[in-house]
Amino acid sequence: MAHIKLPGGLPGIIGPMAAYPEAAKPLNGLAEVILRGPSSLTPGERETIAAYVSRGNECHFCCQSHAAAARAHLGPEKSIVDAVLADASTAPASPKMKALLAIADKVRRDGRLVQAADIDRARAEGADDRAIHDTVLIAAAFCMFNRYVEGLGTWAPQDPDDYVESGERLAHQGYAAFDAGEIRDEWRAGANGR
Amino acid sequence: MAHIKLPGGLPGIIGPMAAYPEAAKPLNGLAEVILRGPSSLTPGERETIAAYVSRGNECHFCCQSHAAAARAHLGPEKSIVDAVLADASTAPASPKMKALLAIADKVRRDGRLVQAADIDRARAEGADDRAIHDTVLIAAAFCMFNRYVEGLGTWAPQDPDDYVESGERLAHQGYAAFDAGEIRDEWRAGANGR
Repeated sequence: MAHIKLPGGLPGIIGPMAAYPEAAKPLNGLAEVILRGPSSLTPGERETIAAYVSRGNECHFCCQSHAAAARAHLGPEKSIVDAVLADASTAPASPKMKALLAIADKVRRDGRLVQAADIDRARAEGADDRAIHDTVLIAAAFCMFNRYVEGLGTWAPQDPDDYVESGERLAHQGYAAFDAGEIRDEWRAGANGR
Repeated sequence: MAHIKLPGGLPGIIGPMAAYPEAAKPLNGLAEVILRGPSSLTPGERETIAAYVSRGNECHFCCQSHAAAARAHLGPEKSIVDAVLADASTAPASPKMKALLAIADKVRRDGRLVQAADIDRARAEGADDRAIHDTVLIAAAFCMFNRYVEGLGTWAPQDPDDYVESGERLAHQGYAAFDAGEIRDEWRAGANGR
């Protein structure tokens, strides 16, 4: 049971976002910008970083939600998402992506761990300033989202299949769909069947 | 030197916000909502929580910026801010505030550390759902802001006096002042004198 009263049936961040819509607006605005806005990284790469950081923080809801969004973006290359989540160092990701994931993991643990050598490695593999900035901000932001979800004691569906529909919507319609109530309705419909 | 190219003379989060304004907008929107929007906690209490979490994460820029904003809000009671930063357990803060600071510190370390007993203690001291929600979100958000600032290797003025003017502006004009360029101009003016 969550630590505070939240609308029934809504998992993870969906409950607090429904209960506190004035905070949900900039949170969704931030997610839209960092995951789907202009960047030198694809939305699939950015959602993979989000899922990877959430895995590191052991936030099941965020990890599964953004892994599902990453798979929806990547289509035929979606197996890379699960390979990264299993072991980023051996996953068939690009050297640039691996260097950025290493930065993301350091930011997740403590931003001060990022050293010039980490940045040099990413640049040598083709990352530009924008990619480095976006990686740092995505990793930082998911340290927030993960803590918001876990610190309130929300519940999360365990079956990855429960996240497929939401992942498709996040990938194709984006985070503004939350404000339109579509994501809430989708989860409510799923919860009704439990 | 920061890990990526940032506008000269701007410390902490001000540099990346100036360089990446599309991300700055929801970041400032979030800060405005969680620190100055409707809440059962005063802005002074919320800025104190923000400074306390940033101190825990050892982010000098965020800690000093929000401590200055908290002092500006609290006026004659401003000494409480430094007492909390020195040792929250012995500070002359209210029992409710101490219970919320304990929750904030757990969220900072790992959201899953928050237990029912922590929530019960806060409720017994008068915290409502809104106060608990806002504390969790503020602590989570500063885990993001701290990592954004530190993960990009930004610089920070060491002297607390350098944060006084900005703290007054954050307290009285809020975070939208950044979008209006006022906060940037103020730091640039300060940097010119270095």
